[in-house]
Amino acid sequence: DVRRMLNGIPPADIAHLLESSPPRFRNILWKMVDVELEGEVLGELSDELQAHFLSRMDASEVATIAEGLEDDDLADILQQLPDRVTREVLNSMDHQDRARLEQVMHYPDDIAGGLMNTDTITIRARLTLDVVLRYLRRHDEIPEMTDNLIVVNRTDQFIGLLPLRTLLVSDPSATVREMMVTDVDPIAVNTPDDEVARLFERNDWVSAPVVDDSGRLLGRITIDDVVDVIREDADHSFMSMAGLDEEEDTFAPVSKAAPRRAVWLGINLFTAFIAASTINMFQGTIEKVVALAVLMPIVASMGGIAGTQTLTVLIRGIAIGQVGKNNQAWLLTREVTIGLINGVIWAVVVAIAASLWFDDWDIGIIIAAAMVINLVTAAFTGAALPLVLSRLNIDPALAGGVILTTVTDVVGFVSFLGLATLFYA
Amino acid sequence: DVRRMLNGIPPADIAHLLESSPPRFRNILWKMVDVELEGEVLGELSDELQAHFLSRMDASEVATIAEGLEDDDLADILQQLPDRVTREVLNSMDHQDRARLEQVMHYPDDIAGGLMNTDTITIRARLTLDVVLRYLRRHDEIPEMTDNLIVVNRTDQFIGLLPLRTLLVSDPSATVREMMVTDVDPIAVNTPDDEVARLFERNDWVSAPVVDDSGRLLGRITIDDVVDVIREDADHSFMSMAGLDEEEDTFAPVSKAAPRRAVWLGINLFTAFIAASTINMFQGTIEKVVALAVLMPIVASMGGIAGTQTLTVLIRGIAIGQVGKNNQAWLLTREVTIGLINGVIWAVVVAIAASLWFDDWDIGIIIAAAMVINLVTAAFTGAALPLVLSRLNIDPALAGGVILTTVTDVVGFVSFLGLATLFYA
Ligand SMILES: [Mg+2]
Ligand SMILES: [Mg+2]
Ligand SMILES: [Mg+2]
Ligand SMILES: [Mg+2]
Ligand SMILES: [Mg+2]
Ligand SMILES: [Mg+2]
Ligand SMILES: [Mg+2]
Ligand SMILES: [Mg+2]
Ligand SMILES: [Mg+2]
Ligand SMILES: [Mg+2]
Ligand SMILES: [Mg+2]
Ligand SMILES: [Mg+2]
Ligand SMILES: [Mg+2]
Repeated sequence: DVRRMLNGIPPADIAHLLESSPPRFRNILWKMVDVELEGEVLGELSDELQAHFLSRMDASEVATIAEGLEDDDLADILQQLPDRVTREVLNSMDHQDRARLEQVMHYPDDIAGGLMNTDTITIRARLTLDVVLRYLRRHDEIPEMTDNLIVVNRTDQFIGLLPLRTLLVSDPSATVREMMVTDVDPIAVNTPDDEVARLFERNDWVSAPVVDDSGRLLGRITIDDVVDVIREDADHSFMSMAGLDEEEDTFAPVSKAAPRRAVWLGINLFTAFIAASTINMFQGTIEKVVALAVLMPIVASMGGIAGTQTLTVLIRGIAIGQVGKNNQAWLLTREVTIGLINGVIWAVVVAIAASLWFDDWDIGIIIAAAMVINLVTAAFTGAALPLVLSRLNIDPALAGGVILTTVTDVVGFVSFLGLATLFYA
Repeated sequence: DVRRMLNGIPPADIAHLLESSPPRFRNILWKMVDVELEGEVLGELSDELQAHFLSRMDASEVATIAEGLEDDDLADILQQLPDRVTREVLNSMDHQDRARLEQVMHYPDDIAGGLMNTDTITIRARLTLDVVLRYLRRHDEIPEMTDNLIVVNRTDQFIGLLPLRTLLVSDPSATVREMMVTDVDPIAVNTPDDEVARLFERNDWVSAPVVDDSGRLLGRITIDDVVDVIREDADHSFMSMAGLDEEEDTFAPVSKAAPRRAVWLGINLFTAFIAASTINMFQGTIEKVVALAVLMPIVASMGGIAGTQTLTVLIRGIAIGQVGKNNQAWLLTREVTIGLINGVIWAVVVAIAASLWFDDWDIGIIIAAAMVINLVTAAFTGAALPLVLSRLNIDPALAGGVILTTVTDVVGFVSFLGLATLFYA
């Protein structure tokens, strides 16, 4: 009954159910999935869960699952297996299937080549639409997400696209050459996947042809796989800010999740000690005026918040390709201006509050000055850091926050306690 | 020359260029866009920039732009204009266009009704495919992203879908009824947009029919608009964590960006004062042992980091629909376990480091105990908070971080300084 219900829902829903279950329940559910559905379900799972279930299968089981999977999904799966198993699976396939698959597996997962399928329908430009219609009717099936037929020359080079929409409304005696679309550029096989996603988003494509350096057609990419790239890239920024991977399994067991989190905590502990050591330099001053210890976290935390806002705006701007050489100076200036304005506004509020609280106008002046210094530093660091990091090919979403808060903590403590040392000396 | 180049690129690229430019340059570029392209470019812009350019147009200009825009995009634009202008634009349209548009405008932006277009091609089940093919040939054009014809009965109720893929390979003498797909559920008009996105992602749809309560066909949603929803929802989580809106304009002028950021800083200032006031209770202890002032930010910050990791995992899990009633107890337990394990591990490291630094084993014991308390609290709060907030319909990505760090600061300071007060009393 549970088994029947489970196997009655779409494979993507089964995958979602597996991903939403704690480890033990997951294994029970997986055993209930019909063998014929296993491949499709596996194709919809995250890499981590794929690897989990694949690790318990032998080559012949994988080979069974392989049937009925699309090339791109199968390639993803095979790329995760030990070489020995992959070879066995490939050997069990017929020559043509293997050749096609090896071509897709040849490319890494994060470029156009790794996203493509080889299930293209190609036609020649000299045919009439009538001939094309009859040619299509000889097919048992047209691949899903086929919105265009791809026009190639005799050496398989991409020439243009014939949309099914055009085919269906045009005069059957017209030729493909007359009706095809030629102003669409095919995707180069080594285009990064985020660039592919941007092309699909901006041009509202359903599918797009992929070509090699010489313009020869290799396959096509479809929007369903691009949607997955978009989701993953967006998740990446979000998860990285907390030192997590976008593939992080929500229901990973403690034994997997704890060590990964521990590393991040260790890095942050190291930076916290750096910040603490700057406070240590001002022990004498704190001993004289204990109120400083009470107020110093305020200066540091306001810098952290302001800097994180700037960092967030810049990281998203870089990720969607809005920030470039010609506008980054403007952005930097704007952020520092905002930091200065908001620094001054809240410095006045904090100064009044602190002065009244501790009945000491000196402490108000000191915290106000430290606040302005820290918010301007935060704005500058929050804007400059992601620009510098991405130029160094370091992920700003991952490293940016740690570095930024270290800077705002250190500058916050040093400016506040340093000014206080001068004032109360 | 610049003008010619600008108007030679796709409207979505013009929109991207406008969004990637500082305000002054933006207005100059906009003036160079050809009037015939303005509508399409406007349709691709963010709400904020749409509003910016629309605010400078009168009703007749808007009416000109309206031609050639899809219903959903035009509805988005009209919904932003003052009622007077919207009425003028609607009055300038012919009766049929207006009726169709008013139907789409009737629905808010964030449900299926607000995403749909009325450009459906409907057919009746009793027709043969041959008749359907001839019917299609009478069209000048088939709407973009048409992968299915929609089968309706005489009262316009949805019955099924006839994929173009099927139409093209099937026997022309077969009837629509024989060949149509009936196991796809249409989308109810009031389905939330994130649920629509999930349906498209899981089922790999290119377009889907939208129906009212009685099953009558209202329109259809296409994947290009769903991709925008996916991007916006993912951006929402990322931006909200820093108190920013997903629609935040990367190049907003200081006059717009500064006030929005100031509000967030104000909220955080308030919470920083709460944390500071807890330190204030322990002035006497700090005066005796100044090292406590040096170490206390470490305890607070480690709690903040650990809690944010948990919060991030939970917020993403909730957003993609993985977290529900039947698994949240398991998640809470796992997070607290991780908090405990990592708390103990790093507590030992911190204890040794602090003891050696200040040559005082008491302070090591105190900070270790405070660290474990704070990391367990952080894990519990980070997991429970988003569950509680989303049940209260408060956005956990926006409010979660502020509340969490307030808790981890307060608990960090109180446990560390409180234990120290007991120890050194
Ligand atoms: Mg895939
Ligand atoms: Mg990627
Ligand atoms: Mg791949
Ligand atoms: Mg688009
Ligand atoms: Mg798929
Ligand atoms: Mg695919
Ligand atoms: Mg919108
Ligand atoms: Mg839209
Ligand atoms: Mg929304
Ligand atoms: Mg709308
Ligand atoms: Mg999908
Ligand atoms: Mg569009
Ligand atoms: Mg649309």
